[in-house]
Amino acid sequence: MDVEALVFDVFGTCVDWRGTIIREAERWARAYGRPIDGAGLADAWRAAYQPAMEEIRSGRRPFAHLDTLHRENLDRIAARFGLSGLDEATLSHINRVWHRLDPWPDTVPGLRRLRARFLLAPLSNGGVGLLTRMAKRAGLPWDLILSGELFEGYKPEPKVYLGAARLLDLPPQKVMMVAAHNGDLGAAAALRLRTAFVRRPTEHGPAQTTDLTPAQKWDYAVDSMEDLADALGC
Amino acid sequence: MDVEALVFDVFGTCVDWRGTIIREAERWARAYGRPIDGAGLADAWRAAYQPAMEEIRSGRRPFAHLDTLHRENLDRIAARFGLSGLDEATLSHINRVWHRLDPWPDTVPGLRRLRARFLLAPLSNGGVGLLTRMAKRAGLPWDLILSGELFEGYKPEPKVYLGAARLLDLPPQKVMMVAAHNGDLGAAAALRLRTAFVRRPTEHGPAQTTDLTPAQKWDYAVDSMEDLADALGC
Repeated sequence: MDVEALVFDVFGTCVDWRGTIIREAERWARAYGRPIDGAGLADAWRAAYQPAMEEIRSGRRPFAHLDTLHRENLDRIAARFGLSGLDEATLSHINRVWHRLDPWPDTVPGLRRLRARFLLAPLSNGGVGLLTRMAKRAGLPWDLILSGELFEGYKPEPKVYLGAARLLDLPPQKVMMVAAHNGDLGAAAALRLRTAFVRRPTEHGPAQTTDLTPAQKWDYAVDSMEDLADALGC
Repeated sequence: MDVEALVFDVFGTCVDWRGTIIREAERWARAYGRPIDGAGLADAWRAAYQPAMEEIRSGRRPFAHLDTLHRENLDRIAARFGLSGLDEATLSHINRVWHRLDPWPDTVPGLRRLRARFLLAPLSNGGVGLLTRMAKRAGLPWDLILSGELFEGYKPEPKVYLGAARLLDLPPQKVMMVAAHNGDLGAAAALRLRTAFVRRPTEHGPAQTTDLTPAQKWDYAVDSMEDLADALGC
């Protein structure tokens, strides 16, 4: 094992998007004086995420920034979840909740240990600006920011994984993809990246049914970033 | 002044390429059992840097990675400076001295202070891999790595400065270029970035004649990164 860099899925793997949106929605409800179904909003917003990217991956639409896709999806569902009639600055602030997601409790301590031995980067469908501001706020100790935006693509498109290895100046075999999603790891493994599965059984809430277990024999399967640091001897 | 991000020239501005090469050359001389003129090597190597990039900026040559240009230039001058007959692994190690450059003494403490208030990134003609490994070794606390490589260009090409602002998701006016080179700042200012000149009067050694003073009225002109932190109220 001569891995030199670990690249991380972010939404769900490093940060708790659903919990953060629910918590922020409580503040929005108070601030804007209306009931807001935070869990419903989070789930509906996230459900629109893959279809929006698929328009681009399929070539039906030119590359567009994830902030743009998130905003289009928000505009579609806003009225259903108590967010109608808000001004532009407020909607823009709400949309940027994806820049303010809180890490899982093990993420920062685990990454700090891993950073002593490996190059660490996100490899996310979030944009460079989003990932940079999230990291600054949450204290995620990345060595560099990698994003599908740099390659005008969205995972699981091969150009995202291969572009990351190229920018790191490493062969894919020296890069390990860390993700809570079997599909992400499958795409990485097909390109010869190493793989680590991190179980996040409540990413989608208490009734989650997907990605509860490794779908294949990945190089590692762990329950937290601290466990990954243990497994890699950090 | 509503600057949100500071982007830094690296070679000469943040790190002492000439001093580092001279120091490493003393080690190479011992390890490889031969006299090596470190200062001569550093100056000749650096003198070949702008002409090599100009082939690409002019369109006469497709984009090539800075590590490749450095290696071509090294191969041309190696025999003149006592480096002939070395094996490939040794020459590759020598070439990667540009990944191992030492920061000026004020760089890390100054950047640490600036980081509390601004997004910080290199904006260098060095590649992403070079800048990442340099930062990890030297403790440069960047929030993200920006490089001409991301835009397949070399400063002072406008696409490098504008690409950096785009990835930061900021208008150019909210980005400040920090450099020891008036030419770099002039190109940035023409695109409406803000500017800070850092005097590095010994970058080229004790007989330096260029970039000793600001050529224009930049937004800031300081003597160190610590002074810049003072000037920006950090």
